Amino acid sequence: KAAGAPSFTGDGFKNFKIRGRIQSDFAQIGDPDKIGTLSADGFTPDRGLGTVAEIRRVRIGAQGEMGDWGYKFEVDFAGGETNVADAYLAYKGIDNLALIVGYQKTQASMEEQVSSLDVVFMERSRFTDAIDLRREMGVTADWSGENWHWKSGIFVDGAFDEDDEVNGLIVSSRGHYTFGPKHAFTHMGASVEYRDSGAEQGRLRNRPLFHASDSRLLDTGSLDSTSSLYTGLELAGGYGAFYFETELATLGLSVRDEAGQSSTARFNGASLHLGYFLTGEQRAYKRSAGTWSRTKPDNPLGKGGFGALDVAFGADWVDLNASDESIFGGQQLTFLAGLSWRPVDHIRFMANISHMEIYDSASHLHLKNDGTVEDDFGLNMFGLRAQVDW
Amino acid sequence: KAAGAPSFTGDGFKNFKIRGRIQSDFAQIGDPDKIGTLSADGFTPDRGLGTVAEIRRVRIGAQGEMGDWGYKFEVDFAGGETNVADAYLAYKGIDNLALIVGYQKTQASMEEQVSSLDVVFMERSRFTDAIDLRREMGVTADWSGENWHWKSGIFVDGAFDEDDEVNGLIVSSRGHYTFGPKHAFTHMGASVEYRDSGAEQGRLRNRPLFHASDSRLLDTGSLDSTSSLYTGLELAGGYGAFYFETELATLGLSVRDEAGQSSTARFNGASLHLGYFLTGEQRAYKRSAGTWSRTKPDNPLGKGGFGALDVAFGADWVDLNASDESIFGGQQLTFLAGLSWRPVDHIRFMANISHMEIYDSASHLHLKNDGTVEDDFGLNMFGLRAQVDW
Amino acid sequence: KAAGAPSFTGDGFKNFKIRGRIQSDFAQIGDPDKIGTLSADGFTPDRGLGTVAEIRRVRIGAQGEMGDWGYKFEVDFAGGETNVADAYLAYKGIDNLALIVGYQKTQASMEEQVSSLDVVFMERSRFTDAIDLRREMGVTADWSGENWHWKSGIFVDGAFDEDDEVNGLIVSSRGHYTFGPKHAFTHMGASVEYRDSGAEQGRLRNRPLFHASDSRLLDTGSLDSTSSLYTGLELAGGYGAFYFETELATLGLSVRDEAGQSSTARFNGASLHLGYFLTGEQRAYKRSAGTWSRTKPDNPLGKGGFGALDVAFGADWVDLNASDESIFGGQQLTFLAGLSWRPVDHIRFMANISHMEIYDSASHLHLKNDGTVEDDFGLNMFGLRAQVDW
Repeated sequence: KAAGAPSFTGDGFKNFKIRGRIQSDFAQIGDPDKIGTLSADGFTPDRGLGTVAEIRRVRIGAQGEMGDWGYKFEVDFAGGETNVADAYLAYKGIDNLALIVGYQKTQASMEEQVSSLDVVFMERSRFTDAIDLRREMGVTADWSGENWHWKSGIFVDGAFDEDDEVNGLIVSSRGHYTFGPKHAFTHMGASVEYRDSGAEQGRLRNRPLFHASDSRLLDTGSLDSTSSLYTGLELAGGYGAFYFETELATLGLSVRDEAGQSSTARFNGASLHLGYFLTGEQRAYKRSAGTWSRTKPDNPLGKGGFGALDVAFGADWVDLNASDESIFGGQQLTFLAGLSWRPVDHIRFMANISHMEIYDSASHLHLKNDGTVEDDFGLNMFGLRAQVDW
Repeated sequence: KAAGAPSFTGDGFKNFKIRGRIQSDFAQIGDPDKIGTLSADGFTPDRGLGTVAEIRRVRIGAQGEMGDWGYKFEVDFAGGETNVADAYLAYKGIDNLALIVGYQKTQASMEEQVSSLDVVFMERSRFTDAIDLRREMGVTADWSGENWHWKSGIFVDGAFDEDDEVNGLIVSSRGHYTFGPKHAFTHMGASVEYRDSGAEQGRLRNRPLFHASDSRLLDTGSLDSTSSLYTGLELAGGYGAFYFETELATLGLSVRDEAGQSSTARFNGASLHLGYFLTGEQRAYKRSAGTWSRTKPDNPLGKGGFGALDVAFGADWVDLNASDESIFGGQQLTFLAGLSWRPVDHIRFMANISHMEIYDSASHLHLKNDGTVEDDFGLNMFGLRAQVDW
Repeated sequence: KAAGAPSFTGDGFKNFKIRGRIQSDFAQIGDPDKIGTLSADGFTPDRGLGTVAEIRRVRIGAQGEMGDWGYKFEVDFAGGETNVADAYLAYKGIDNLALIVGYQKTQASMEEQVSSLDVVFMERSRFTDAIDLRREMGVTADWSGENWHWKSGIFVDGAFDEDDEVNGLIVSSRGHYTFGPKHAFTHMGASVEYRDSGAEQGRLRNRPLFHASDSRLLDTGSLDSTSSLYTGLELAGGYGAFYFETELATLGLSVRDEAGQSSTARFNGASLHLGYFLTGEQRAYKRSAGTWSRTKPDNPLGKGGFGALDVAFGADWVDLNASDESIFGGQQLTFLAGLSWRPVDHIRFMANISHMEIYDSASHLHLKNDGTVEDDFGLNMFGLRAQVDW
């Protein structure tokens, strides 16, 4: 199989490989003159909208194997910060079972398990972004067959926090089953993630699609929360050059009101993505893990072909309002269209356009032509990405 | 020799190799409900004890040679920080002499010279940890023979500090001699390290063994210090599958009292480690450097063997009290037992249990059942580590 | 060609290579007792002068190609910070044209385009340092022939700034033409860089040559600026073992006074470097890019030779005064002499001595023997560097 960088096997090690990726993003998010915040001094436009650009991800790392053991390490330098993306050791000496210890993804949501190199649009669905699913440190067990898997883990948060006073526990579990042959398969899956006090979400918020912006149009503000339970359902499929994926998810967050009374605030999200490869490829899918993987162009540019070109459409719903608990984070409906071009394997260009409707925004308001403001408003945006990995 | 990653030699370079390591730690440190601090509001438990977890070290780097020159670079991303672990250039063109310039370990203590991959317990001895021996930038000369060495260096602190106003000088020197044949050797060594104003220790403190905790049960607080002198003695040996190592060290720290009068506060530490390889290996030792090195399993798991298993016991004493100077950092006696399993070369699992007695703790108190508190108390703990390097 | 690390070509990739460098600096900058600041409490010496040391650069990265596409990534860990040095994707499928997207150098000044491994003295000319030319995120097009090039780009600042509210645009362009044969060539070039509001210089300042010091003897303080235009001219040449390079540059900075009136403050700089290889090498130069590149020793140490030794002299002028706009950053005239030894390819040692004259220093004063102070003064300094790259 063609890799982006050499892989080495020798005395005492197998498949040692250097890893890395660069994603350069540019976006135009409107309308910065008309969307902003209101204070006693009047309306202030949000300059975090408008023309934005950033290195979205830039990583280097290594992976390899020693006997039945494997490891993976990757570190990200985007945003002027240093964040380890993976740092784990795996044991694969038992049939159908892998045991993984270290810093790794928790098992919630299908799209969160897919590499950021291989997702449909420039960003993942808005709901899993709002609830900040992320890597944690712990132990997972992955039990899998040819067309199914069940992976569960227990984690302790604060793996990279020097001064973490309270380490919360996290338990998550995800499974899937794939029906049908390779060229016409249907995927069904589900996942749950429980987060104990100290590890639970203390704030839910969301950028307007593109990460290069620092604005959050949805925002619950800080919450006095004590634990959370995520539940998600997945349905996806690939039928020749056509593919789709849809996820439904809900987060129950235990919060305390000012009187100290606990109740469960409920937040919901849903997404639907449809795509089609104009150049005839089938979107790559890993049957034993229930995740999308790297799609290679059938006819690379420069070898008589044009690469792989796919077009995708999406709709995405996020509801961060929980009125019984007096939490008003806002609601968001996003429509997306995307074009993705892979001229050769390991290189990808993306163009996304989107219309987003915000309802009940708590943090931002729209300035109307008559000088009044409203908390229900729409905005248009587009983004571009150049991506390489090795 | 079997390496964890490939090594390359070509036109203009030799032995180029990518390096790295991952250490994932979990620990249980008790008793968080009963150990804490006392204020006007009463007793506050220290939640930095209890269940803790962290990525202890995660590194990537490179090393190589060009003619008689060699270099090594490694950077660590643990704790949400970025710390260069080594960055030096060495000249090896003279018999028995190596000259090394750049960021490197100073020459104090035997155990500090041993890689964190190869020390007996999950953490090094408590005294060298309390006085924060670390890498500095400078020049060292390593004069060595088959079974002895003498390495000395001069350093300037602040190698990675952009706004360091005062760069203090550091001079350190360490030597050793090894008696006996390879399978029954005895090591004797000594080291000194002088730190000038600006580079000297300004505070001595210590975590309760496991680094994943952010508590410090021993703590002198900030000191008005002007220079320091470390002196350490080493005795160690390997006799077949049995090994031991013991170090005695003292730090004289010049401090000023409130009247500006200088005197020398003295802090002491000692450690003794005994170990035995149940699977028959001898602990690897580098005779020309006087340091322990990587022990490889004789019979790796998956090749008809079980790997290397060793059991170790330790006792460790730290005294951070200097009553003449009115410094009361506390005293600590630690007993340790550890099991270490290397299933294949470059993979290691560790389990440590420990009982620690704290005397005269200045920062923490123990809440007794009768509601009173005491500054002499004990605590039990255990820790687990999964480690891979390449 | 001899590289410092292996380069790999395989199925799907070409010329994959790990990159890196270490530069260890030491400097002595005088006179810390006599140069400092004056306040109501009297004269305070600047302890940022004197003996200083630092790891100047320590980097790791990767580069490679896939078909007509190439990429380069490098990250720097000096100064306790993490800064991506390059992160871009290039398309080279068109004759004489390269298109580059991502984080890369802007196109201003010849010396800024030369690798920090290959510049004449330990630091680049003082003027481009004072105005902080640096990498940005954007798209460049490099149109080039055998002995000329024209490279232009458009950039958006804030590529690594998570909370950048205003992203300013930058446009820069540089071209050159080389006359004469390889062994007696003359280079002529010019560059311009426009920085829009948000990306423009807000402060101009300068360390006393060596970066290990944290003092700035020239400093305009914070300016209320809105845009800037850099213009630079280059003349250089190599004639056997002799080489020279000279640059003239000016920055027009739009600033607002307290009344909000805009005007253009003008800052100027010039440098001249002359060098000669005592061991007969010619300084390496890339004709199709108009930049100096890596000079290899003809007779490496250890292979019957002594390596490459060159001696260089320089003069450097910076004027950060703009009296019409009441900006008094000071003026600085620097004389330099440097010895540079490359024993083998990829290893380099440098010794620089310098005398610097400061005029109208706004931030620092010189304490005379009679107890009075002056803002015109001179200082002497020397620096040493050990460098390796791979």
